[in-house]
Amino acid sequence: MTKWIDCSGPDEDVVISSRIRLARNIENIPFPIALTDKSQQQVYDEINKNIGEDPYELKLMKEMTDEDKCILVEKHLISPSLVESSYGGVLLNQDQSISVMINEEDHIRIQSILPGFQLDDTYELADKTDDKLESNIRYSYDERLGYLTSCPTNVGTGMRASVMVHLPGITITDYISRVFQAANQMGLAIRGIYGEGTKFLGNIYQISNQLTLGRSEKEIIENLKHVTRQIIEKERNIRKQLLQDNKIQLEDKIYRSLGILTHARVLQEVECMKLISNLRLGVFLDIIKDIDSSLINKMIIMTQTPYIKTLINTEDINLINTKRSEIVRNLLRT
Amino acid sequence: MTKWIDCSGPDEDVVISSRIRLARNIENIPFPIALTDKSQQQVYDEINKNIGEDPYELKLMKEMTDEDKCILVEKHLISPSLVESSYGGVLLNQDQSISVMINEEDHIRIQSILPGFQLDDTYELADKTDDKLESNIRYSYDERLGYLTSCPTNVGTGMRASVMVHLPGITITDYISRVFQAANQMGLAIRGIYGEGTKFLGNIYQISNQLTLGRSEKEIIENLKHVTRQIIEKERNIRKQLLQDNKIQLEDKIYRSLGILTHARVLQEVECMKLISNLRLGVFLDIIKDIDSSLINKMIIMTQTPYIKTLINTEDINLINTKRSEIVRNLLRT
Repeated sequence: MTKWIDCSGPDEDVVISSRIRLARNIENIPFPIALTDKSQQQVYDEINKNIGEDPYELKLMKEMTDEDKCILVEKHLISPSLVESSYGGVLLNQDQSISVMINEEDHIRIQSILPGFQLDDTYELADKTDDKLESNIRYSYDERLGYLTSCPTNVGTGMRASVMVHLPGITITDYISRVFQAANQMGLAIRGIYGEGTKFLGNIYQISNQLTLGRSEKEIIENLKHVTRQIIEKERNIRKQLLQDNKIQLEDKIYRSLGILTHARVLQEVECMKLISNLRLGVFLDIIKDIDSSLINKMIIMTQTPYIKTLINTEDINLINTKRSEIVRNLLRT
Repeated sequence: MTKWIDCSGPDEDVVISSRIRLARNIENIPFPIALTDKSQQQVYDEINKNIGEDPYELKLMKEMTDEDKCILVEKHLISPSLVESSYGGVLLNQDQSISVMINEEDHIRIQSILPGFQLDDTYELADKTDDKLESNIRYSYDERLGYLTSCPTNVGTGMRASVMVHLPGITITDYISRVFQAANQMGLAIRGIYGEGTKFLGNIYQISNQLTLGRSEKEIIENLKHVTRQIIEKERNIRKQLLQDNKIQLEDKIYRSLGILTHARVLQEVECMKLISNLRLGVFLDIIKDIDSSLINKMIIMTQTPYIKTLINTEDINLINTKRSEIVRNLLRT
């Protein structure tokens, strides 16, 4: 069970998930890039000892199967670069709303994800975990700069707050370019579903703060909340308008997408995400019944090319596209 | 019940139906173009009295609803020009394998249609009906020319033999241009699903003899059989090859077509026929189960624009396309 995937959240018609990430490093241990096996062990011990009473599960990258690592990446619980790190590990709580990456770019990256639009609760979750660790671990901290991190772009709060939003309406009406512009002016970055440099598949966007220095955590979160709230309203208005002006055409597009997803024998990634996007829109416009957001979240995660590659151990794009269609059909059959 | 639609026939993977049409006129009654009400009645009486013991139903165009007339046209049991004729009528036997059009272009047009590739049986059916009528009616006949008809292109045998074939394989591989060429050399015409001048929708073609003069009925039929037999073999070989070389892609195309047909809320005529063609191919490649040729025949008939126009009494193409999708969904739900 992964809370952000399996559960409902506020404003989930537009906001898929809310995420907070805090970058921390332990004083007197070299940054991961310079780590030896011994100091690597030291990082684990420090974290393990201080994570508190919640049952956390520790997973070491080198002990995990490729498939398991891949699933954690697709679920956004760990980063692809953690997988590459032979000294990397992750602590996960039971509902996977908290993941603590160890020896990624920084010693510690505390991450919390919750379904829907709930940045305050998400921050609280990350903050509590941070407090637990900080009560016993001495972080690298500078009175003037704040938390010190491997990459200067994270120095200060060490925090990245983000929302993953589904904007089919805003995208279809080309209003999206204005969203990009506005976000930029507000110091926010917009990325595709799998972070920097990835394509905007399935009309899904990640919006996050660019600055970590010179603003408090609260200010950063309030800013992101403010912009997201406006985007939610705009997206809802456009959807309402589409439904009013082109009901039949919209229903046709959504039902055809369902028809293709349930019947295709070959599905390319870009097309698949487009169809899933239409389906998600249909679910929240109440056009498609009996399918919920958790099924769609699973579909997004399980149809990503890297995951399928690992699952069937192939680089053959034909086999991958065939498998993708099979995964989708199986998910929609239930 | 219409036999050619509801029943199976030989070689039905390629040949949808076989049809024979005999044009006849009654001696000493003016051709329909010059008919008065009185002589019109005379034509009816002559035919009715001589049609024999089979229970035939007589339908007069002026007494039928637009919808009923339209269905008979779509089923190829009467021609659109009979509908236009206020003096027109049709005799239908119980399984509608025989239809005798009265006062169309000629006084009498005997037509037989059977499912699949069975031109001999189809001819026999028409010929028997012709004999019954001829035993009591004196046809306009010339020793040298043969049967006399309104249009000189029908003089002689007065016969048009045709097969309606489904050639998705031949069409997709562009072999169709060679079929056209060969048919032409053999004195055969190829037309779309609804006769001369109609588009080749759904990869369905009607192949018929062009000449009625100077050849016996048997020769005309043998010639058409010979060409059709070659087309059947070619079509089957191409399908087999497609299945061997592109199985997954072919299955994908066929299943997607089923997915769209079962889900779309708007279906344009051309797209609809293309999807039905894919579905029909899938049925006879045994890729799609639980759907038989009779359902597909019904779908072709009930999705034609003129029929839907009459059914919902509109010229609005949006309403027609919406209704078309509804008809298809209902048919596929059963």
